[in-house]
Amino acid sequence: MRLSRYFMPILKENPKEAEIVSHRLMLRTGMIRQQSQGIYSWLPLGKRVLDKVNKIIREEQNRSGAIELSMPTLQSAELWQESGRYDAYGKEMLRIKDRQDRPMLYGPTNEEMVTDIFRSYIKSYKDLPLNLYHIQLKFRDEIRPRFGTMRSREFMMKDAYSFDLTQEGAVHSYNKMFAAYLRTFTRLGLRAIPMRADTGPIGGNLSHEFIILADTGESEVFCHKDFVNFDIPGEDTNFDDVAGLKSIFDKWTSVYAATSEMHDEAAFNAIPEGDRLSARGIEVGHIFYFGTKYSEPMGAKVQGPDGKEHAVHMGSYGIGPTRLVPAIIEASHDENGIIWPASVAPFDVVVINMKAGDQACDEACETVYAALSKAGKDVLYDDRDERAGTKFATADLIGVPVQIIVGPRSIASGEVEVKDRKTGARETMTVEAAINRLAG
Amino acid sequence: MRLSRYFMPILKENPKEAEIVSHRLMLRTGMIRQQSQGIYSWLPLGKRVLDKVNKIIREEQNRSGAIELSMPTLQSAELWQESGRYDAYGKEMLRIKDRQDRPMLYGPTNEEMVTDIFRSYIKSYKDLPLNLYHIQLKFRDEIRPRFGTMRSREFMMKDAYSFDLTQEGAVHSYNKMFAAYLRTFTRLGLRAIPMRADTGPIGGNLSHEFIILADTGESEVFCHKDFVNFDIPGEDTNFDDVAGLKSIFDKWTSVYAATSEMHDEAAFNAIPEGDRLSARGIEVGHIFYFGTKYSEPMGAKVQGPDGKEHAVHMGSYGIGPTRLVPAIIEASHDENGIIWPASVAPFDVVVINMKAGDQACDEACETVYAALSKAGKDVLYDDRDERAGTKFATADLIGVPVQIIVGPRSIASGEVEVKDRKTGARETMTVEAAINRLAG
Repeated sequence: MRLSRYFMPILKENPKEAEIVSHRLMLRTGMIRQQSQGIYSWLPLGKRVLDKVNKIIREEQNRSGAIELSMPTLQSAELWQESGRYDAYGKEMLRIKDRQDRPMLYGPTNEEMVTDIFRSYIKSYKDLPLNLYHIQLKFRDEIRPRFGTMRSREFMMKDAYSFDLTQEGAVHSYNKMFAAYLRTFTRLGLRAIPMRADTGPIGGNLSHEFIILADTGESEVFCHKDFVNFDIPGEDTNFDDVAGLKSIFDKWTSVYAATSEMHDEAAFNAIPEGDRLSARGIEVGHIFYFGTKYSEPMGAKVQGPDGKEHAVHMGSYGIGPTRLVPAIIEASHDENGIIWPASVAPFDVVVINMKAGDQACDEACETVYAALSKAGKDVLYDDRDERAGTKFATADLIGVPVQIIVGPRSIASGEVEVKDRKTGARETMTVEAAINRLAG
Repeated sequence: MRLSRYFMPILKENPKEAEIVSHRLMLRTGMIRQQSQGIYSWLPLGKRVLDKVNKIIREEQNRSGAIELSMPTLQSAELWQESGRYDAYGKEMLRIKDRQDRPMLYGPTNEEMVTDIFRSYIKSYKDLPLNLYHIQLKFRDEIRPRFGTMRSREFMMKDAYSFDLTQEGAVHSYNKMFAAYLRTFTRLGLRAIPMRADTGPIGGNLSHEFIILADTGESEVFCHKDFVNFDIPGEDTNFDDVAGLKSIFDKWTSVYAATSEMHDEAAFNAIPEGDRLSARGIEVGHIFYFGTKYSEPMGAKVQGPDGKEHAVHMGSYGIGPTRLVPAIIEASHDENGIIWPASVAPFDVVVINMKAGDQACDEACETVYAALSKAGKDVLYDDRDERAGTKFATADLIGVPVQIIVGPRSIASGEVEVKDRKTGARETMTVEAAINRLAG
């Protein structure tokens, strides 16, 4: 992408309304724009990151055996009356009447709808287990949306729903998602800690939040320091291996971790003082097992091997991509801007032309840009008619992992500089060497 | 994907509510499910097709230089009051009040919002031309939603918006989208005919609908038969070539074509009778040039080379992916089911195990499934415990382009059958030959 033809509106000033660093940086880099209170556009740079985050989420959901579909944003009130949540949900639910005066709502979550889909088609235990997910917009009419897309009203959620004949089956489905989440967050460059959590309006009695530690987090969290060293399940994880997944779950829940709602002061104090971690955190995922809470009232039943009808055991599993993006920034930035983990960077590399219009610089830049694009890399080419200093600042601010700097002096001897955004390390090498280094 | 672990709820009976073939087939194959009137879930099989359609749309938008972002679904009423459309839009606009009693709406289109984004950041002609698009859900509260996702209330739209300093520039932007649309529809396996059209509530004075011919189409259309032979712009089309794109536009608008709203009986009758085509059609895309209709009242102005402020010239360009899927089915099916063009097929190939449980069949199927999956193909493996006849019927119904049929008799001599869904042609070959044929 040639920056001269891109739409990446960098703000010169720090926006005053932004209280936390991710919100500030997302506004400054032109990743997002507020359209109404708590409702955002994702501008091109932000959209790229969001797409990469969703791709990783999707790959790990699929790997675990979950199946993607897409449910609509608007739901009929009737469904929620069946589960009893229509009245219970309160003012966060955006209630709507259509032109025929039928009561509708903008889905804040999809337990009812997916249960309705399930009961329409699935009649036998032979079709279980089943896990259906979608990545879809949700709306929760928060009274105080804030921190940009960290707590917005219209937001994106990956929500998965598992269906099993028995509680044991459902626990295995829960463990699948538990392992998939550990893999997902790691691939996003985050270390997330699963913590026993309150189940809130979703209901049920088994629930974990996945929390990343950050000073700006809204939650107060308490855990053992050992989490930092636990192994992440590998790519070769067998999601059908009941005992194997249970051992992952057991390991990751073997030491103390809890949010303030579930905090047990005595248990925490039993940890040696040097191993106690008391911090603030950002919730980036939440998983629930809630048995037959929805299947029972909504009649989602299957015939079991015994020939009788059984209400299915369900769980639901959420990740918020539009919250993950700022969470990654909270975890990875410096005074010059964002430092993207390579897996979610909007571009893999930025080519900085220090002197656009200089023939040697232009040619070298075009060569690098063409070669890396051809190699399948996402390349941003800063071909703007701007001072080199402005370009350096932009490149640091938007946090692309690698910068290739092409200036008139070094290109005279056929060389460019390759800079690592995270470490700041610079290396001088030939154009060819730079291409070979980055095309791989 | 192993069918035994997939969620593809095939209906045995033809659903009574479906009036047209695409609606019937989408319900029967478990591609979609109606959740409320005119509001659909895309079940896994449908979601796969929709994703492939969107991928092609996106690739062609990007090729033409358009830049992707994502605007939210909910908009504030204020924006629409600025353009004057809030009152004008009528009952199709879903109006909503949030918990603070602020008037909102579910976007039926995004001219206002994108103009608001533009005016917030772009101040100089040097940043033009610009074309911003997104693929996002829309809501239009149709009084009579029907034909499944062909005319639904919640639907997906790719909508692009171009911004230029001058009318000439805007016409070139229009021609870019014109060429991109021709390429897009061709890649989707469709022949779409651009027709002069009424501009409706979007406004402006230059507009084309892209129509595919189908007996079930809602529009009556009139055109010259020559369209069927016109060349489609190639992959190497230079979208910066003003004259080149104009010649494409001129060619494709050189002979008569109009929807009934714009029909000129005299002009049509001037065509030799054998060359007249009077038919029904489905609108699959609509492009508009409307000058300063929104930029003027909303103050979207840039400084020109003359130092003065100019309201920008705009166009908007829509394609409906959730309508394209049934349109493709209308254009490509037979009495046994859907016949997907390879580019949008939910799976590239289906492996049919005629006798699940038979060791030789199972092994051959596993070999083919693994080899083709490894080669990057989307493979559906029908490993269900069902009769062969049921599996054949399912494979034909869901319209996967190629079937690999593994039966106990032929596998005894190491052979399988490869069937082309479209032609019905069958070929017997070794397992290896089948893999080599399809892995390419």
